[in-house]
Amino acid sequence: MLSLDKIYQAAFTLKNVIRPTNLISAPGLSNNCEVYLKPENLQITGSFKVRGSAFKISQLSDEEKAKGVIACSAGNHAQGVALAATKQGIKSIICLPNTAPISKVEATKNYGAEVCLVKGVYDDAYKKALELKEEHGYSFVHPFDDEDVIAGQGTIGLEILEELDSVDAVVVPIGGGGLISGVAFAVKALRPNVKVYGVQAEGAPSMLNSINNNEIQTLPSVSTFADGIAVKSPGENTFHYCSQYVDEIVTVNEDEISTAILTMMEQQKTIAEGAGAVSVAAVLANKLPLDGKKVVCIVSGGNIDVTILSRVIERGLLNSGRTSQLCIELTDRPGQLHEVSGIIAECGGNVIAVYHERASEIKEINGCYLRISIETRNFEHIEQIKQALIKNGFKLV
Amino acid sequence: MLSLDKIYQAAFTLKNVIRPTNLISAPGLSNNCEVYLKPENLQITGSFKVRGSAFKISQLSDEEKAKGVIACSAGNHAQGVALAATKQGIKSIICLPNTAPISKVEATKNYGAEVCLVKGVYDDAYKKALELKEEHGYSFVHPFDDEDVIAGQGTIGLEILEELDSVDAVVVPIGGGGLISGVAFAVKALRPNVKVYGVQAEGAPSMLNSINNNEIQTLPSVSTFADGIAVKSPGENTFHYCSQYVDEIVTVNEDEISTAILTMMEQQKTIAEGAGAVSVAAVLANKLPLDGKKVVCIVSGGNIDVTILSRVIERGLLNSGRTSQLCIELTDRPGQLHEVSGIIAECGGNVIAVYHERASEIKEINGCYLRISIETRNFEHIEQIKQALIKNGFKLV
Repeated sequence: MLSLDKIYQAAFTLKNVIRPTNLISAPGLSNNCEVYLKPENLQITGSFKVRGSAFKISQLSDEEKAKGVIACSAGNHAQGVALAATKQGIKSIICLPNTAPISKVEATKNYGAEVCLVKGVYDDAYKKALELKEEHGYSFVHPFDDEDVIAGQGTIGLEILEELDSVDAVVVPIGGGGLISGVAFAVKALRPNVKVYGVQAEGAPSMLNSINNNEIQTLPSVSTFADGIAVKSPGENTFHYCSQYVDEIVTVNEDEISTAILTMMEQQKTIAEGAGAVSVAAVLANKLPLDGKKVVCIVSGGNIDVTILSRVIERGLLNSGRTSQLCIELTDRPGQLHEVSGIIAECGGNVIAVYHERASEIKEINGCYLRISIETRNFEHIEQIKQALIKNGFKLV
Repeated sequence: MLSLDKIYQAAFTLKNVIRPTNLISAPGLSNNCEVYLKPENLQITGSFKVRGSAFKISQLSDEEKAKGVIACSAGNHAQGVALAATKQGIKSIICLPNTAPISKVEATKNYGAEVCLVKGVYDDAYKKALELKEEHGYSFVHPFDDEDVIAGQGTIGLEILEELDSVDAVVVPIGGGGLISGVAFAVKALRPNVKVYGVQAEGAPSMLNSINNNEIQTLPSVSTFADGIAVKSPGENTFHYCSQYVDEIVTVNEDEISTAILTMMEQQKTIAEGAGAVSVAAVLANKLPLDGKKVVCIVSGGNIDVTILSRVIERGLLNSGRTSQLCIELTDRPGQLHEVSGIIAECGGNVIAVYHERASEIKEINGCYLRISIETRNFEHIEQIKQALIKNGFKLV
């Protein structure tokens, strides 16, 4: 059974495993409330997951420890288990689907785990892990639905209260629900008046659905780039604790998550992964009743692939008017590009791509489309460039 | 005159202005030495500059304070002066060239400064600032060549020694030389055996040239995306202190700086601007004799425009084999793209852009080029895709 006592015990056990992640004041994130970040993206392995794994492993019997542990994950849990086991001198086996990104496989190996690549998807790897567990007597470390794992994640709740005595609300990402279960249990046990809010991705609202229906629901599929919280079904334990201790759960969409990642990059110089950014996304999008409150957003992890990050930035630049794509219908004759580029330059726009398209759907046979990507200052600037083009007789489509 | 006493006084003065920036252990950055980051990118205003400005302003007479301060900068110095003045209840005027990015202008205003946009470039804004100073009796806050400013930056040296008693070397970005002058003075005064190394951008080696020639040299032009250290000429004070206290100065090129930014993003989840990353770049590129040493890299700032960051990521992905552009010479007939894309998919490459070019320089009239951008895992993976295409009879150019 989960107890405050157990969470304190976990905090003691974790002292030599984890890095301190002191709260970061983030005044630029809201005009309505006082925001602090709990930066578990700066935690060792780049996510909070190591906490639960390390405490779980510490609680095994000597006999179990001698046999080793096994887990199934293509993400943060894999690295958490690997590091936690290695630090305690225990063998770890991580089953991953063979489609997992090389970088994740390498990171897991680097933390000392034996990696077992399984042909197929996550479910195949999970099945294999259970087989190996039976065969060799390994202890299985569940990513969230385990009292010890939950107690380990709950240490974040203790740390928040210790560092910011006057906190009013804690905002927590929810995937399987291990993190929020531990945090909510700890916070409500010590300070029942502090609100605990959960945030899920719009494309993976498994806990929200389950709570709304008063029973565990399994989504047929999940869709979000926040892969760390793309979970089809909550656990039995986590469903129970969330029902009991979480004040409200909201969802955020992909654009809101992207904006949160970009805002944290620009204002806090820190990198969150999609799952880690949903708490901040909920605050930025005003999804929660936080006016005038002291709010801690748990930024649960920072392991985002830079190719994804690059797309997030591109999307964010478009969404905030800092890049723009114009399409101009032209008559195909010399000097047109020269004239258009002159107008854009005059307005201070910086052309970054040009595509000249002799489109068949234009009525005139000598018509064409000129698609131009421009770096701009903001939406006003884009409008100014558009008006200048229109004033000079160009037709925007 | 600069003195250790003055730097201690600055540290005391700055207590209520700056944020603590504790050292961050960064074991992933080198196999040869033990690296720590001094994250001044997380400093208030996003750079160390606020330290020097705040101490300088605190040292003004009441009469001077009543008149206000003026500075000229399109970057971190502007924001540092603005915030420092506002915190001390003093009026500040910042002259900027009217070509400065809107974001910098807005940030400077938000910290409470009056912004004076001057038509032209930096030199014009500088001239205007001197005129206004004469006219209104404002005190001019120099970005680096001032004993009080240098003393303020020197507080970073004290903090490093206090936090990491056993440090062997400190690596410091150099633009005008204010930061390294203060840090080197403090470090050498207290611990003469600790090495202090400077790093400049290859395209702006003003301090290195000056030291090598034993007199201040002015570069005709500078060229680097690390705009925070793109300085044509060191100051008289900073030249003097660097000559006396800095052990060695090295340079890093644009690709090395990009790689450092990307590595810090991926491994430390933290964002550095170009100028802030040169210290880490020098370590990553093995430019300094640091084997087996405890090294602190000062990451001086994090104010990088996300459009630049996006380009840095793209460059970094190309440089590390995680994206690739292939060009295939084809005979222009149906089914070719289908076949090529099938081979790439089979190898696990992810196509992100296709450009079909009926190039006139190909000899055959029905020949064409297919340019394909692919997300790949590493250089080995790229090679594997290339070989598969060649094996299937395609000609890569």
